[in-house]
Amino acid sequence: MEAAFSELKSRLGKLTDLRRMEALLVWDMQVFMPPGGVPTRAAQLGTLEEIVHAHMVDDRFGELFEELEPYAASLAYDSDDASLIRVAQRDWERARRVPADLAVEFAKVAAESYEVWVTAREDSDFAPFRPWLERVVDLRRQYIECFAPYDDPYDVLLEDYEPGMRTSEIREIFAVLAPELQSLVAEQATEEEDPFLDGPFPIGAQEALSRELVEAMGATWDQFRLDPTVHPFEITFGLGDIRLTTRYSESELNSLFTAMHETGHGLYEWGVSKTLERTPLAAGVSATLHESQSRLWENVVGRSLPFWRWFYPRVQETFPGRLGDVSLEQFHRAVNRVRRSFVRVDADETSYGLHVILRFELEEELLSGRLAVADLPDAWNTRFEELMGIPVPNDAVGVLQDAHWSGGGFGYFPTYLLGTVLSIQIWERARAAIPGIDEQIERGEFGELHHWLRENIYSLGRKLTPAETIERVVGGPIDPQPYLAYLRDKFELFATV
Amino acid sequence: MEAAFSELKSRLGKLTDLRRMEALLVWDMQVFMPPGGVPTRAAQLGTLEEIVHAHMVDDRFGELFEELEPYAASLAYDSDDASLIRVAQRDWERARRVPADLAVEFAKVAAESYEVWVTAREDSDFAPFRPWLERVVDLRRQYIECFAPYDDPYDVLLEDYEPGMRTSEIREIFAVLAPELQSLVAEQATEEEDPFLDGPFPIGAQEALSRELVEAMGATWDQFRLDPTVHPFEITFGLGDIRLTTRYSESELNSLFTAMHETGHGLYEWGVSKTLERTPLAAGVSATLHESQSRLWENVVGRSLPFWRWFYPRVQETFPGRLGDVSLEQFHRAVNRVRRSFVRVDADETSYGLHVILRFELEEELLSGRLAVADLPDAWNTRFEELMGIPVPNDAVGVLQDAHWSGGGFGYFPTYLLGTVLSIQIWERARAAIPGIDEQIERGEFGELHHWLRENIYSLGRKLTPAETIERVVGGPIDPQPYLAYLRDKFELFATV
Repeated sequence: MEAAFSELKSRLGKLTDLRRMEALLVWDMQVFMPPGGVPTRAAQLGTLEEIVHAHMVDDRFGELFEELEPYAASLAYDSDDASLIRVAQRDWERARRVPADLAVEFAKVAAESYEVWVTAREDSDFAPFRPWLERVVDLRRQYIECFAPYDDPYDVLLEDYEPGMRTSEIREIFAVLAPELQSLVAEQATEEEDPFLDGPFPIGAQEALSRELVEAMGATWDQFRLDPTVHPFEITFGLGDIRLTTRYSESELNSLFTAMHETGHGLYEWGVSKTLERTPLAAGVSATLHESQSRLWENVVGRSLPFWRWFYPRVQETFPGRLGDVSLEQFHRAVNRVRRSFVRVDADETSYGLHVILRFELEEELLSGRLAVADLPDAWNTRFEELMGIPVPNDAVGVLQDAHWSGGGFGYFPTYLLGTVLSIQIWERARAAIPGIDEQIERGEFGELHHWLRENIYSLGRKLTPAETIERVVGGPIDPQPYLAYLRDKFELFATV
Repeated sequence: MEAAFSELKSRLGKLTDLRRMEALLVWDMQVFMPPGGVPTRAAQLGTLEEIVHAHMVDDRFGELFEELEPYAASLAYDSDDASLIRVAQRDWERARRVPADLAVEFAKVAAESYEVWVTAREDSDFAPFRPWLERVVDLRRQYIECFAPYDDPYDVLLEDYEPGMRTSEIREIFAVLAPELQSLVAEQATEEEDPFLDGPFPIGAQEALSRELVEAMGATWDQFRLDPTVHPFEITFGLGDIRLTTRYSESELNSLFTAMHETGHGLYEWGVSKTLERTPLAAGVSATLHESQSRLWENVVGRSLPFWRWFYPRVQETFPGRLGDVSLEQFHRAVNRVRRSFVRVDADETSYGLHVILRFELEEELLSGRLAVADLPDAWNTRFEELMGIPVPNDAVGVLQDAHWSGGGFGYFPTYLLGTVLSIQIWERARAAIPGIDEQIERGEFGELHHWLRENIYSLGRKLTPAETIERVVGGPIDPQPYLAYLRDKFELFATV
């Protein structure tokens, strides 16, 4: 039994190494690779995917899982070893459904398609991207068929990001949110300008402030990096090697929120119990849980009045020309404005949900075949205007704005909103557990919050299912009501100012 | 036959992908990775090495080579296909001599040892590095034994960098060079100061000048990168994805020479015929040929008077405070001074050879067991003083200065001097072939030189052996006399000023 478990761990360790190499290839491609590297990088990703796939679906795993059944049964459900066996077996069974050549082709096409998207977005021209997206959608449909029978084709894709979540559950939650968010936007959206937020804010100074925030949240540079890229993301090469990426623009301060967002993701992965290192459990459990952490730090903490009581003086002294005569209250209000806007990643906490709902609906239609890729830009523009009430001026800030679809990441977007919703449920628990949390934040002290999140969420890694993890932390399923109440409370705060 | 060749190419393509992934893991480790990534990166390199090794030694290659023998025999010796079959077979036979677990252990230990070296060098403390170096030497000895019987243990290591080269040949060439270089140093070394070269030269401005040089030499940023690191190197992820690294220090302008040096390496790999992409031939043929290119650009071009006639005005206008009243002749002389110095990478063209000869002798003794690692710092210090005539003040500028040994790179150093020697032989041929080359360089035009080198050397990749490549370009073997004549000519130039 011991030999079998040790072999399992060794095989899973190598698999983790390979997955992290894949992460490095992708990170480098998006952060540093010159465009001339596209064809060779695509080949490298294809070759690695083939090797990863072969390792993942190895028949030997089946024998090991069988042999280890009595051992797993003898252990507590949430012990490291029982969890490892259970989760690895689930991953293995799922991986075996997908033929190697499909996985390899998908990896290659996704890499090339991403590069085409970068240019298409720069040129605001959907046409050259269209055949690539068609190919990507087609490959995703083939992937879905590997898991037949299924209730809903979209369920299959969701399973990769949010195991156990059903499309129908999301529809229900979004059905509550859509009209509420639309009416909140209608009520709160303003065209009032805050010209002091238009910069110029020199990028070097923004980078220094971003680094201060990453540090204040508890990350240390001996185990983290922060680099600029087109579409910010966090990626993990080891529990001691966390890569954050961000984006700077002279004409806005969004980089501060992006830094907190990506650090939130990074703290989650960093906080996974070291006993799970080099296993498939050494990661966040789902995209929703992940997003709950990035949004908690970016928005719930990072757009709160206590937070800016601490950090606004630093920002103000960094940009005295722009912010010298802007009060804390003005600034705090400005970074909490509700606006009808085009770009999801720059959206406020309220309209953000509408951006996500749009993508979820379009994805469902694309994948079910009810919407053709050729009709996607029109569908985007029509539905966007219905939801947000403003017409889309071009594809760069419309259908081409996100990287996700270029890489076939359908099923990911809904987790952004689910995570936002969950972040409020988690925040309420943390608040209840930590007396004086507002005063701590006012002093720039995030240690106790970080510690609580680590203890209650981060350290678990992928040991439990997402639903079990959520149940354990907030005592129930995802619930949109606290989020709506949180938004209303915030508007009340501003109404009384 | 066609099916066999196509299978061979597919297998070699994947092997090339894997090797380039290894390169990415190493590049990232040395350029960007936070120290917290050390244990996981070591594991990743170990896992990848295991996979590479398994792919390399696959029995199937033997069957393919046998099947392809008549095809190879039917082709011209230097055709792409015949060369691919011949070189791949040689690589395969060599790889099969080394057991997988030795290769894997070596990769792991080398990665960890490198990190220990970084700290040891910073602290100028050999003691913590010693057990790692002992382990590395021991693993290299085990490697050598895989190739028994051999004439000289050092031959085995040389073969990895300089296939076909024998230790005895190097001894002969170095026996000519050592006394000549010692007497040139004795004659020419000066302690005269050029305080205008001591900076401060702001790093941002140095970086901008470095980038100008990389561009002037013909590299384009859509296929190149230049990043700072501890020990500069060039590495290739694809014929369109070339990574240069360099080092900046406020107190010197060496970064300009480092940029030309690494670009020389990069142009070589970039110039390999595109028909060889994703094969094992898509690389420089040997370390000596490689170094001949880096040294040709760095020194033969980059320390010449015509070159500085073009570039000195740019440097002068960049640093008017330091260089405003320094003439071209003063500057040119200053960057060509012969000095007794401690650090190889900062050494002048003349004393450089003595640094290499020291390392070659110590390596030979370490690997043959005549010198213990524990005695290495003392041996270094004693022999260095004998060769250079100055005492070594500490290990940071002594035995710990180079990264190579930490990663087990014994056998590499001699190629630095062989390449320097060869660079003059190649330069003489290029000069003869390109009328007006000095005038071109004076105008900052390097296109014809680049083109000639590409046609005559770069495009060949690994198709011919190093000796065949050298014979084809310079019409004979490596010869130290042109190099010595080149040095004497330069000193004469200064003597007449």
